[in-house]
Amino acid sequence: MKLHGTMRIEKNQLYIGGVSVKTLAEEFGTPLYIFDEENLINRATSFQHYFRSNQFSTTIYYAAKALSNLYVFGLIRELGLSVDVVSEGELYTAVKAGIAPEKICLHGNNKLPRELMMALNYRVGRIIIDHPTEFSLLSDLCRERQQKIDVLLRINPGIQATTHEYIQTTTDDSKFGMNTADPDIFALIQKIDADPYLDLKGVHCHIGSQILDKNFFVEEAEAILSFVRQVKTKLNINMSEVNLGGGFGVYYTAEDNPFDLPEFLTEYISVIEKLIEKYDLNINTISIEPGRSLINDSGSILYTVGSVKYPLQGRPYVFIDGGMTDNIRPVLYAAEYEAGLANRMNDQPDDIYRVAGKCCESGDVLIQEVALPRPKTGDLLIVPATGAYTYAMSSNYNRIPKPAVVFVNKGKTALAVKREDYEDLIRNDMPYTS
Amino acid sequence: MKLHGTMRIEKNQLYIGGVSVKTLAEEFGTPLYIFDEENLINRATSFQHYFRSNQFSTTIYYAAKALSNLYVFGLIRELGLSVDVVSEGELYTAVKAGIAPEKICLHGNNKLPRELMMALNYRVGRIIIDHPTEFSLLSDLCRERQQKIDVLLRINPGIQATTHEYIQTTTDDSKFGMNTADPDIFALIQKIDADPYLDLKGVHCHIGSQILDKNFFVEEAEAILSFVRQVKTKLNINMSEVNLGGGFGVYYTAEDNPFDLPEFLTEYISVIEKLIEKYDLNINTISIEPGRSLINDSGSILYTVGSVKYPLQGRPYVFIDGGMTDNIRPVLYAAEYEAGLANRMNDQPDDIYRVAGKCCESGDVLIQEVALPRPKTGDLLIVPATGAYTYAMSSNYNRIPKPAVVFVNKGKTALAVKREDYEDLIRNDMPYTS
Repeated sequence: MKLHGTMRIEKNQLYIGGVSVKTLAEEFGTPLYIFDEENLINRATSFQHYFRSNQFSTTIYYAAKALSNLYVFGLIRELGLSVDVVSEGELYTAVKAGIAPEKICLHGNNKLPRELMMALNYRVGRIIIDHPTEFSLLSDLCRERQQKIDVLLRINPGIQATTHEYIQTTTDDSKFGMNTADPDIFALIQKIDADPYLDLKGVHCHIGSQILDKNFFVEEAEAILSFVRQVKTKLNINMSEVNLGGGFGVYYTAEDNPFDLPEFLTEYISVIEKLIEKYDLNINTISIEPGRSLINDSGSILYTVGSVKYPLQGRPYVFIDGGMTDNIRPVLYAAEYEAGLANRMNDQPDDIYRVAGKCCESGDVLIQEVALPRPKTGDLLIVPATGAYTYAMSSNYNRIPKPAVVFVNKGKTALAVKREDYEDLIRNDMPYTS
Repeated sequence: MKLHGTMRIEKNQLYIGGVSVKTLAEEFGTPLYIFDEENLINRATSFQHYFRSNQFSTTIYYAAKALSNLYVFGLIRELGLSVDVVSEGELYTAVKAGIAPEKICLHGNNKLPRELMMALNYRVGRIIIDHPTEFSLLSDLCRERQQKIDVLLRINPGIQATTHEYIQTTTDDSKFGMNTADPDIFALIQKIDADPYLDLKGVHCHIGSQILDKNFFVEEAEAILSFVRQVKTKLNINMSEVNLGGGFGVYYTAEDNPFDLPEFLTEYISVIEKLIEKYDLNINTISIEPGRSLINDSGSILYTVGSVKYPLQGRPYVFIDGGMTDNIRPVLYAAEYEAGLANRMNDQPDDIYRVAGKCCESGDVLIQEVALPRPKTGDLLIVPATGAYTYAMSSNYNRIPKPAVVFVNKGKTALAVKREDYEDLIRNDMPYTS
């Protein structure tokens, strides 16, 4: 198992942020989401420091769908990042956490009228228009309210990045954005540009997630900036802002070779600068939206081992006290992870195990193959690189309460989300009366 | 779209349980889980009436993991069914809803010590032992507490039912139960039988889910009852109780031909009676555990249409105000559903559409192909046969609040679960303090 961020081994025990994982288990119980705050801060700082140019300003939007709660938004606020939200719930939480509304942009393929209203009430910085009907809806709302708003148009340049089909977003049949090859796109841009209440700042694009090949980002920048040129030439409309989205891949297992952030971001900026020069554009702002690549590496999920079971066929199972309810990615995307025994880090593996969750569902297997020293009841199994899309996608399937979330940093621990209890499970339930 | 249960069309409008779906949308908002109580009661009554024998008693356990909340458990209580639970959360909710503990059995491949303790505290009717370590854990707890408990052993006869691999439960490498071909199984049975605190009533088996071929159930009954014979012959241990689990398939689309319950259950009972005679067994009780087959047919999810979008390639998208957060089955199992426009039931289809959710995720497509009259903004799209594993597996991904659950019956509406609000989303969140 790779040691991420501040992870250290001392006397066979795993420490994160200077805190022993065993102590965390004792204090907060398991399953437990553990975040390495220093690692998160370092990555955020890398994005801020290296995605910078003398020719245009840059904005780093934290893509909140990877993980959002008051604590993480508060940290993002302190770090000075902007935030991209995709729903009223994310927007509400971000504002509640003190994120300045002008630093928020609102995404989504089907924004509800009440979501747009909430965004207008808060006066968010940007709304990303997805398609013609949404433009009409927003335009009508703004006219009724006599309120102006800055917008971008989400475009889709038809790039098929190599990733899971569920997280490819710019195929030609994607539900997101307007295809740049769609002849109707120019009429839509003219309409938005002519709208007295909408200020069309530019375009947004997001080609997919967990992309580990730089060429896709170069291809995207080329496609988007040449499109901005096309709009300038064809419609005489100048777009001053381009949001290139995210999708920067991360390390899950030794098969993933994520970018070195300083190197990649420096190169990325340079590619963008050259393209802006090539197409002779007046770009003020370039934005990106890291979510997974900001937060995934800093998160781990900690479990307690129940038993080891030897089925008639196949690898032995290590049963843990969580599973698909706290991390659905293995079941949903066949996502792979590493794991270790946090209380026996230096013990030698004796076999290859399968790690299975406790859900009453055969598919609830978190890891298909991992070398471990033979686990014993009560051992602590840790699955690192699980910060993104785990708590965010967690469920109460089997009526299992959601685990707590803690942040650790320099020997200190902060509870970010309290563990759900029985009362949480029935809070909204009404009794049956015959 | 097939009309299930009490669904009727009047003046182009869909009615369920005598209530207009449009009225439900107005009163409770969308997305909305709607349950046809009469349909559920009828199915429960069919199970009770037709799964009955003169030679042994029968027990119908409602498999709570399909859907559990105080309301549905209250209804199950009134109907006199027993309940199978798989976690402390389900157990807690069942007892809170007034289900008598002796009518509850506890399942799970990795029951936590605190779950077993809770089951012992409540004095549940049965605990299903999954594997040797669990036996030891339970035996130790019972000895410490000087408490007796009735148990079954979960066995796995290695039957591969034709269904999604995630919901096959008796393959030879399954995480569930003891394989009947495992030579260690007899020693385990002897140990349980000899334990002074555990009363080994018999065995439990569950071959999988959504099975539409009767032969698998016949094969299962044959395998289990011949195993009971083997135990009698080999160990001189008489098992008086057999729980055959569930897995009876339901109608999702026209491709599914579910069993006619009266016919199937009558035949099933007769097969079991003959096998008991053939193997000369002293069986007192045969149990089954319908979950999906009890509740799926009575549930629908109602959405409001946002817009229709025509991508450059592929079928047009109908965007709705819910999606993978309220029904993850299409994304998780490639599950298929029918749909209709509840406010325009008699309008003729004009095209084949894709129904896409509002999650910021390309995979969030609920239905890949459905013929509909061209949907308009504000139309009500209903997806029937969604009672099981929808609310139960729902998440707050994208920080989307969970929809409300309502039950309708004979013109009356009962709110079963209140819609989550913004405060629910941040209830357990702690602020960041630097």
